[in-house]
Amino acid sequence: MTSRLQGFGTTIFAEMTQLAMQHGAVNLGQGFPDFEGPEFIKRAAIEAIESGHNQYCRTHGLPVLNAAIAEHQRRFWGLDYDPDSEITVYAGATEAIYATLAALCEVGDEVILFEPYYDSYRASVAMAGAHERLVTLRGPDFSFDPEQLRAAFTPKTRAILVNTPHNPTGKVYSRAELELIAQLCVEHDVLAITDEVYEHLVFDGEHLCLASLPGMRERTVVISSAGKTFSFTGWKIGHTCAPADISRALRSAHQFITFCNGTPFQVAMAQGYRAPDEYFDTFRSEYRARRDKLCAGLAEVGLEVLTPAGTYFVQTDIRPLGFDDDFEFCRMLPAKVGVAAIPTSAFYANREAGKHLVRWAFCKTDPVLEEGIRRLQQLK
Amino acid sequence: MTSRLQGFGTTIFAEMTQLAMQHGAVNLGQGFPDFEGPEFIKRAAIEAIESGHNQYCRTHGLPVLNAAIAEHQRRFWGLDYDPDSEITVYAGATEAIYATLAALCEVGDEVILFEPYYDSYRASVAMAGAHERLVTLRGPDFSFDPEQLRAAFTPKTRAILVNTPHNPTGKVYSRAELELIAQLCVEHDVLAITDEVYEHLVFDGEHLCLASLPGMRERTVVISSAGKTFSFTGWKIGHTCAPADISRALRSAHQFITFCNGTPFQVAMAQGYRAPDEYFDTFRSEYRARRDKLCAGLAEVGLEVLTPAGTYFVQTDIRPLGFDDDFEFCRMLPAKVGVAAIPTSAFYANREAGKHLVRWAFCKTDPVLEEGIRRLQQLK
Ligand SMILES: CSCCC(=O)C(=O)O
Ligand SMILES: CSCCC(=O)C(=O)O
Repeated sequence: MTSRLQGFGTTIFAEMTQLAMQHGAVNLGQGFPDFEGPEFIKRAAIEAIESGHNQYCRTHGLPVLNAAIAEHQRRFWGLDYDPDSEITVYAGATEAIYATLAALCEVGDEVILFEPYYDSYRASVAMAGAHERLVTLRGPDFSFDPEQLRAAFTPKTRAILVNTPHNPTGKVYSRAELELIAQLCVEHDVLAITDEVYEHLVFDGEHLCLASLPGMRERTVVISSAGKTFSFTGWKIGHTCAPADISRALRSAHQFITFCNGTPFQVAMAQGYRAPDEYFDTFRSEYRARRDKLCAGLAEVGLEVLTPAGTYFVQTDIRPLGFDDDFEFCRMLPAKVGVAAIPTSAFYANREAGKHLVRWAFCKTDPVLEEGIRRLQQLK
Repeated sequence: MTSRLQGFGTTIFAEMTQLAMQHGAVNLGQGFPDFEGPEFIKRAAIEAIESGHNQYCRTHGLPVLNAAIAEHQRRFWGLDYDPDSEITVYAGATEAIYATLAALCEVGDEVILFEPYYDSYRASVAMAGAHERLVTLRGPDFSFDPEQLRAAFTPKTRAILVNTPHNPTGKVYSRAELELIAQLCVEHDVLAITDEVYEHLVFDGEHLCLASLPGMRERTVVISSAGKTFSFTGWKIGHTCAPADISRALRSAHQFITFCNGTPFQVAMAQGYRAPDEYFDTFRSEYRARRDKLCAGLAEVGLEVLTPAGTYFVQTDIRPLGFDDDFEFCRMLPAKVGVAAIPTSAFYANREAGKHLVRWAFCKTDPVLEEGIRRLQQLK
């Protein structure tokens, strides 16, 4: 294995999902729904397969999907992008993140990440030959120290990656936080990469696009995921919105990484992005109910619940139950209790900052959430 | 755009397909079938979507697909791989190639490529921070100079990439050629990466896996593509077979590049790989008929046809028609004649070696091939 991959053995998701399967555990670990996305999207995919949309499509995305993404971006976040020159479709947001870093970072560049981070960020930065600079989010509110952020900007900073709503904490960045980030990006002429795959899952407050702040549209790559928004994570359709010059660089990388993906799914996702507002409202309110159910259950068990403002994850502090090491806790849980969760310190370089925290996913049907909570009673 | 992507603007496939669309040309350029893959695979995909195989699957592939790939590899090429630890599934062979180079090459390593090369090889080598060393295949028989190959191995050589059957020339590497490559790999302790996506399209001679030669299984990454083998290129399902230690490195990269891909398509492709021998025989004989039809037509027009032993591409020398620049020829063709083709020198670093050559794809239905040939009469 090449040195740039040292230390990136196996994602924590693969490890915990495997443990879950091995022990028949209720999987509240890896973030994928155990229910299906909307029937109209499924039908559209089947129809696309039947009617012969099964060969390569345009490398930057099927025109109908690029157009629907543009429409959606304007409708919800008031941002205008040209479908043809500013929107690019990938094999999921994972590839979008990877390709963006590969396309934009020189060897030796620095990229600012907030820890805890989604694990592919660090690996993608390393694989691009760049170096990470970390700013720490600390519980219970997962705020950061503005001075630490300011100090993270150096003459070598190429980009800052901002994930809002934030996985794994459930934090939704406030306007004030985003304004500070924007101000520093403009001041230091730094690019922003925003991972907004949970854009429609904000329960408290509202989702704000960093790209909509003054001076930011021209320097921001917005990333999102149809797989997440429409609950078909296995179809792997994600995208970027970025100014044409940046998009050209992203496409140059993307065309050699995967070339294109899932032609019939692109046809179907175009219908998803054109769904009426009601779809997105229901999506959010159903998730709010799941959040409330799981949070109540976890509190009942005796964990300290850090109620998330967004995403489909919730953090808990495990110390009230007498535990103090999240990895030990999560490796014990599937066998002993029949539930799987994710140790939050897997997402901190500085493990100490997260080892009292465990992440639980609530993208699960009510019976599964209820069974998980029932089993967790054994912890009491 | 980062320096490692300089010079890799837009793939020639995107450029020529766009020209084809713009002029309503018969597209004999980009290599994708204009017909559908087998109905039983389509039905299997639809059934998988209907029955809820729509979320992330295991990052190295759905167990049923890994098992079917192992079975297929044993049945046709007599090579045994453990489905669980030695086979990995990607978003197409393109990602497999990219991830393999990213996982195995250190910055500054050298990778030996034969030119003409499939264009993503060079870009993937460059993005890994490695350097290419080129060995030239020259028409009409596209053989290489053994001394040039020998000289390409240096103390910095990490890997050699061998594509057989070979795109864009249609060459099938002979046993003697592969034995020399194997001998040099063993002697210099170099890895081999074999792109075998046209493994079932050999019309003259036979397909030989470099990995089956003495000393090679342990140092070879075999790459192939269900998309190509089953004519669903838009589904983007490809794989590698490689020893467990190498596979671990590949997976480490893959999990952060795309994580997984096309869950319902993986279910369906498993059925494809389990199809009876007859499927693969028919696949080949239908392609042989297409090859013969297109070769005859191109010869009739007055081009010098270099009949391919494999793949679904044929090379022609354009000089008998009075042309001597393949790019000029291919940029003129869609507008003037209503046909699109690919300039072969796009795949040579040393353009001079290929600028009298043009590549035509015959993965098209008879009426399309016939219409293409009819339009090409205008060149006479
Ligand atoms: C690609 S596997 C990880 C899924 C996910 O987003 C999460 O669990 O955080
Ligand atoms: C991924 S687009 C290129 C398709 C192909 O294999 C070719 O035309 O050579």
